[in-house]
Order: sequence, then structure tokens, then C-alpha cells
Amino acid sequence: MQKPSLPKGTRDFSPEIMYRRQFIFNTIRQIFERYGFQPMETPALENLSVLTGKYGEEGDQLLFKILNSGDFLSEVQSPDFESGYKKLTPKISEKGLKYDLTVPFARFVVMNRHLLAFPFKRYQIQPVWRADRPQKGRYREFYQCDADVVGTDSLLCEAEIVRMIEEVLAGLGIESFVIKMNNRKILSGLAQIAGAEGKETDLAVAIDKLDKIGIEKVREELVERGFTSENLELLLPVLNLQGNFEEKTSQLEHLFSTSETGKQGLAEVRTVMTYLANMGFEHPNLELDISLARGLSYYTGAIFEVKATGVQIGSLSGGGRYDNLTGAFGLPGVSGVGISFGVDRLYDVMEELGLFPENTAVSTQILITALDDKTFAYGLKVLSLFRENGKRAELYPEPVKLKKQLDYANARNIPFVAVLGSEEQANGEISLKNMLTGEQKRMSIAEAMMSYEL
Amino acid sequence: MQKPSLPKGTRDFSPEIMYRRQFIFNTIRQIFERYGFQPMETPALENLSVLTGKYGEEGDQLLFKILNSGDFLSEVQSPDFESGYKKLTPKISEKGLKYDLTVPFARFVVMNRHLLAFPFKRYQIQPVWRADRPQKGRYREFYQCDADVVGTDSLLCEAEIVRMIEEVLAGLGIESFVIKMNNRKILSGLAQIAGAEGKETDLAVAIDKLDKIGIEKVREELVERGFTSENLELLLPVLNLQGNFEEKTSQLEHLFSTSETGKQGLAEVRTVMTYLANMGFEHPNLELDISLARGLSYYTGAIFEVKATGVQIGSLSGGGRYDNLTGAFGLPGVSGVGISFGVDRLYDVMEELGLFPENTAVSTQILITALDDKTFAYGLKVLSLFRENGKRAELYPEPVKLKKQLDYANARNIPFVAVLGSEEQANGEISLKNMLTGEQKRMSIAEAMMSYEL
Repeated sequence: MQKPSLPKGTRDFSPEIMYRRQFIFNTIRQIFERYGFQPMETPALENLSVLTGKYGEEGDQLLFKILNSGDFLSEVQSPDFESGYKKLTPKISEKGLKYDLTVPFARFVVMNRHLLAFPFKRYQIQPVWRADRPQKGRYREFYQCDADVVGTDSLLCEAEIVRMIEEVLAGLGIESFVIKMNNRKILSGLAQIAGAEGKETDLAVAIDKLDKIGIEKVREELVERGFTSENLELLLPVLNLQGNFEEKTSQLEHLFSTSETGKQGLAEVRTVMTYLANMGFEHPNLELDISLARGLSYYTGAIFEVKATGVQIGSLSGGGRYDNLTGAFGLPGVSGVGISFGVDRLYDVMEELGLFPENTAVSTQILITALDDKTFAYGLKVLSLFRENGKRAELYPEPVKLKKQLDYANARNIPFVAVLGSEEQANGEISLKNMLTGEQKRMSIAEAMMSYEL
Repeated sequence: MQKPSLPKGTRDFSPEIMYRRQFIFNTIRQIFERYGFQPMETPALENLSVLTGKYGEEGDQLLFKILNSGDFLSEVQSPDFESGYKKLTPKISEKGLKYDLTVPFARFVVMNRHLLAFPFKRYQIQPVWRADRPQKGRYREFYQCDADVVGTDSLLCEAEIVRMIEEVLAGLGIESFVIKMNNRKILSGLAQIAGAEGKETDLAVAIDKLDKIGIEKVREELVERGFTSENLELLLPVLNLQGNFEEKTSQLEHLFSTSETGKQGLAEVRTVMTYLANMGFEHPNLELDISLARGLSYYTGAIFEVKATGVQIGSLSGGGRYDNLTGAFGLPGVSGVGISFGVDRLYDVMEELGLFPENTAVSTQILITALDDKTFAYGLKVLSLFRENGKRAELYPEPVKLKKQLDYANARNIPFVAVLGSEEQANGEISLKNMLTGEQKRMSIAEAMMSYEL
């Protein structure tokens, strides 16, 4: 017989881990709902026609594809096999597992556009699948927690994303973090003024390395990527961009005198900052980072990324504005903006920093123990009384030795045990044992429920 | 451009439906936890070696199989194609989607047996996938809600299953239902006394039709299935089994004088009834139904099935005891017993009977509306005040015409709207509009929060 195993990159979640994950989910859910987002779900299975081409060529390779059911070979001709797996795949597989929550959400919006009240705000907490090489902190099946608004250009959404990030991290107890904000239009503006329009990604990738490799190496890399000396002359002030939000934006403003796109990006980040100021909070962890690109993928406006400082863990959250996601499904002109939290990263940070509360488990409150069949019958009555009063109670299922039953209570972190003997039964009482202190006292069931916050 | 679509047998859940489903999940979760069950999750993906052979040949056909990633053809030879899809499948697919929650749970127990405190009680609320032909009420991706105990033979577990079913249905407001209970050993006993050992399934299938086709047709069917006249002579009293629990068990006792297995099954259902009586509840909806077989699959003891009466919807819940599920993974001798609720069926019954509470939605409590940029800035302050006090508040993201903003509040079922004009702003007040009555009144924000349970 084969030893059973889990597929690489997947995990079981035991009760202990579930409670901690639920603490994270519940914190996020509560904050999303406070901001007016409503829950939604889409299936794990999507037609490959919906998924393919939305995540770049690499993304297409990372889609998990489902073999058609029944005789999937019935319409395949033998030459199909010889043309290689890439050509064969669409003939034997029509469906795949969803790769993220955003593209299926865009599909949902398009399919239900006549039923939705816009702006439509939804959140989604569901697993996604990527056939990536598994490694520490990277799984093939993992949950995303997304909140998106579609159907409005208002920069209030961007400001609220910053606030939600701050509230979620505060709610989880994560104090040291940085929220990096950028705008796709600022990146376009930079490329424009450098005379290197369309090279936003090259530019961002190079700038991103400034801290690590220094300005000379960045300059070399930009030259390799086809930037001219003239381009670089114009970009130098940007590479040295320093200071707080005000200082950075003033410098950019000067630079963007000839780029309308750049000016607009700058105006957008300023409006977001104004809205945040109007809300009356300080944002010590928010910074403008013009090297932030997030692969650019489908973003067209604001871009966000969140990192915990002081721990070696990748980004906890990321998002931005996309003006044309539903366009891929035939509905142009619907602007969306969203944020996604990675629960695994949040979990790892919280574990590393010891931030999980002691009491995340919804544990059984009292274990009732019987020592023979007669007290077991009495135990059934006691059990019902506790449960009728809404208490989480268990009767150990067999009247075995007390030690075994107490061991079970300890292993399950059950704080109280009711010991039932013939005297307790005769008087309709229980002996209540506090598993922390070891103290034991006889009392009525009503007293036990009242005195011990059972 | 292709119109986007959903794979057959899958569904999106809009916020309205999500809230109703969450009402069902939360009711079940709360009751499971009151009975000492802890949450757990296993991945959607399982190795096919874990799933295959556990659900019969038909089940194997209904497994969704995942195409291996990368060049899945690299080790396939051309003769492999000619031997048909069944032979090719294991060469190009190693993983599948889980078909139920029980088999992956058994795998989990075996893999983690040294870490778990037995008896181990867990619940699981997760989707499963079956490549079944979709039809009304039958989906290819659907949620199951399971609670199982492993590591004890105690019939307390069976009694608690009956109680949990009663509590869940009461919690959902479903009043007319029947819980059918049987025991695999009773079925074996019947086959035994009829001299037709091993034909339990044939027998159960035939008895099951008694109501519909009458005793003569059942007799014919049994003859077709190889039962002799002698067999049938002995079985006749069973086919006419009538009366309440006591009456049925007395008749069976008489019948089982020569079948130890039958006696044991009878003793088990009696013990369950005794435990239930000790708990002090009446069970008007519980009945002994010796025709209940549930395909027998892996059950070895008790069998349960729940149906709503008065509506044309299949079984709401089913379960039973299985003595050897972990045996398939190399760990024999671990008895388990469990119950599974089908959330889609529960949903359909509740919808048909109009049982969903009005207020399942966690809706935004107040929508703040601004009519120009200046009051929008004030709106941001008001918004923050409500949210800081834990209220679910939204500011309409653009200062458009009031009518459009009120339409949004109506579409979203938001009960209160704060209208902000320059006077309100000057006084630090809001005009609070009750969307149900149309009443509108100016007041301070503190007053709004206190007076209206916002």
C-alpha cells in the first residue's frame, strides 16, 4: 500500500492553523464590510477561454488545466499528438482553475452588468491555483482576499484602499510596515520625458534596483535596455529623488512640465493625499515610490504595494487601478480599482512576530467525564443542559479511566472538566475541575454556568 | 470577441445569495462547534492515487483530473495514444479535484495520526467537484458541510448526529422533515436470515420501492435478483414491517433469533435511542427505516438520511459509520462516523418555504452624499467619524446629482442616507434621511449614531 501524500505546494489546515487563519480572514472581512464591500464568490473552475491571455505568456503556462471528462481523445487526430503538448492542450482541456480573483470578477461584472448597482463594491476570499515551482512561502493553492470597486473613477477609492490597508494591519497587530504608492501615469510620464515612451517597465525595473546596485550600475542597465545618454541625462534627477511626499512631488512637477500624462499622474496622487488628509488621519507608513511597477500587468492608474519592515517576507498586499479589465470581455469603459491581501504572508509575519492572540480557538468550554455506564447516562443529561444553554460542551464518548479523559481535555485545551460520580448524580450536581489551576469543587449545574463564564 | 461564460454546472454567488448561504453555513458551524467539532480544511487538489478506487468505478469516471503541468507529453509514447483515453489518463494526469470531504479527511488522519488527540472531531465546509451531468439541484462544483468523529466506537456519536440534524434544521426554520436511521448490520442480518448473504444491496434497493410499486412487484424484482421462494417466505414479515420504533424492533428481534449480526445491529439502534432518551428530548421526526441503504458504499454501522417533507427536494443530509476508511491508507482499526449537509438542498428548501430571514445581509448602514467638491471634503470627515465608531459607512464616490446617490442607496438596501449641504457643513451636522419612511432631520453626528442604532 502506498503512503498517502499531498500534492506539492498544497497544504492541509489543522484546527489550530484554521483558527489563526480565520482570525486573519475575520479581521479583513470586518474591515471590508465597514467600507461597504459585499461578499461574492466565483467558481474554482473557469473556461480556459476566460483565463487564457490575461496573465501574459508565463501566466498561461501556470494555469492548472482540467482534462475534459469522458473520452477526451474522441475528437483528437493522431497528427495532433505530434505537434506537441501546447497544440494538444486546447483539444483535450476546456477548463482551468482560477489563477486570481480579479479576472473572474471582471467576467462576473460583464455577465451581470444589467443586474448590478454601480459603483459595485465586492470582496472575495477564496483559493486560487498556480502551477508555480513551490518554495518557502509560495504555494500552488493559496487564498487571496480581494476588495474591488468597479464603475467609478473617483480617487476616493484609492484613498480608501490606503485606509483599509492601515486598518487591516492595525487589526492584525502589524505595526512596522510601509505602503508604497505609485501611479502608472507617473511611470509613463518619466518614460515620455526621457524620450523612451513604451519603456516604462524597463525603467521601473532598473530604478527598482537603485538601493541594491547603486546609480552607476543602474545607468549601465538602462543603456543595455536601449536608453540613450540623452534619455539618461533627463532621468538623473528622478533617480536621485529624495525626501517626503511634498518634496518628491515638487521635483516631479518641475520635471513633468512637458508631459501631460506625468502631470495627470502627479495630480492623481496629490488628490489621494488630499482625501486622506480630509479624513483626518496621519499616514506615517505611506510613501510615494516611483520605482514601484508591480509588473504593470493590467494597471493604468494608482499602484500599491505593502511590505512589513523588519522581517524578510515579500509583499503582504498589492493592488491598483485598471481601466480596461472588463474590456477583454466586451465591456469597455468600466474603471476598477482593488487591493489583494495574501493571507499566507500575513500569517507568516504574524507568526514571526508572535502576534496571534492566545484565544483564537473556539474551543469546547467543558468536557463532561463519566466513569461507568450509570454516570454516563447522567452525563447525557448534563451534556444536554449545557448545550441547551448555548455552551460548547462534550461528553467523553466512553466511560474510560479518568486520566485518559483528562489527557483529552488537556490536548484539546478544554478549560473545565465536569467529573461525575454517584454522589454528584444523586444530588444533580457536578464536580467542576479547573484544568489550569487543578482546583475542583462540587456545585449545581446552574452555578457552574453562572460562576465560570462557561 | 467571445461572450464570457461559466463552465456548465458551476455558479457565481452574488452578494445577496452569499449572505443567505453564509446564514446556512454559520448556523451549521455554530452547532458543530457547540458539539465540540473543530474546523479543518484540505486542499482542492489531491493526488489521484488518493482518490481513485474510493468511490467505485462510476466515481472514478466522475473525478475531475488535472493535466500535468509543463510538457505532459514528454514521457508519453505514441502507442499510448492508441490504447484509449483510460490508459492514457494516468500518464498525463497525476492530480484531481476532491470528490467529497471524507476520503481526504481519512488521508489527513492517517498522515497526522501521531499529532491528533483521539477521538478527533472535525468539521469541514468546502467545495467538492464531480463531473456529473448537471441538472436542477445538481452541480459540478458544490459545497459540503461535514462533521466526523474518528477513533471511537461509542454510539454517543450516532446519538449526537441525530441531535445535530435536529438542531441544524430547527436553526434554519425547517420544521417538516424526517430523519431516517438504519444500520448496515440490520441489512446484513436480513440478508442472512433470508439465506441471501452478500445481497444486502439488492435487498435494500427492492425494499426501497415498496411504497411505489407494491409488494407483488417487489417480490418479482427480488426473484429476478436471484432470491428464492424460501428466501422470500422468510423476508415477507420484514416487507410488512409497520409501527413505531418499539414495534418495529420487537418484530426484528423475533426475526433475528438466528442472526448475530442482525441482533448486534438491533442492539446498536436501541442504544442510540436510549442515549437520545437520556438526553431528554423527543424525536418525533426520527424513524427506523430498514430500507435505507445509501448505496452502502463504505458504511459498516449506522446509516442516516434526512428529507424535508412537503417539498420535492432530495435528501438534505446523510451519513453513517464507517469502520475501515483509513484502512485504505494503511491504518486499519480506526472507526469513524459522520454527517454531511448539502447546502444547495438546504438553500432550495428554505427558499421554497420562504424561510430566509429578511436581514441576512451585512449591509452598509449609512450612505453619505455630497453635492459638490466642498461638501465632499466634509463628507470625508463625516465618513471617518462613522467608521471610527465601527459603523459600516460609505461616501458616494462622486458628488453627482442626489437622485443618483439615493438610487444607489435603494439598490443596495442602505437604510439611512446623510445629506450634506453647506449649512450642515457649517454646523458640523448632517441631514439624516430614513430611506424607509422618507423622513429627513438635521442633527449632530453623535445624535445620529446614538438615536438610530447606526
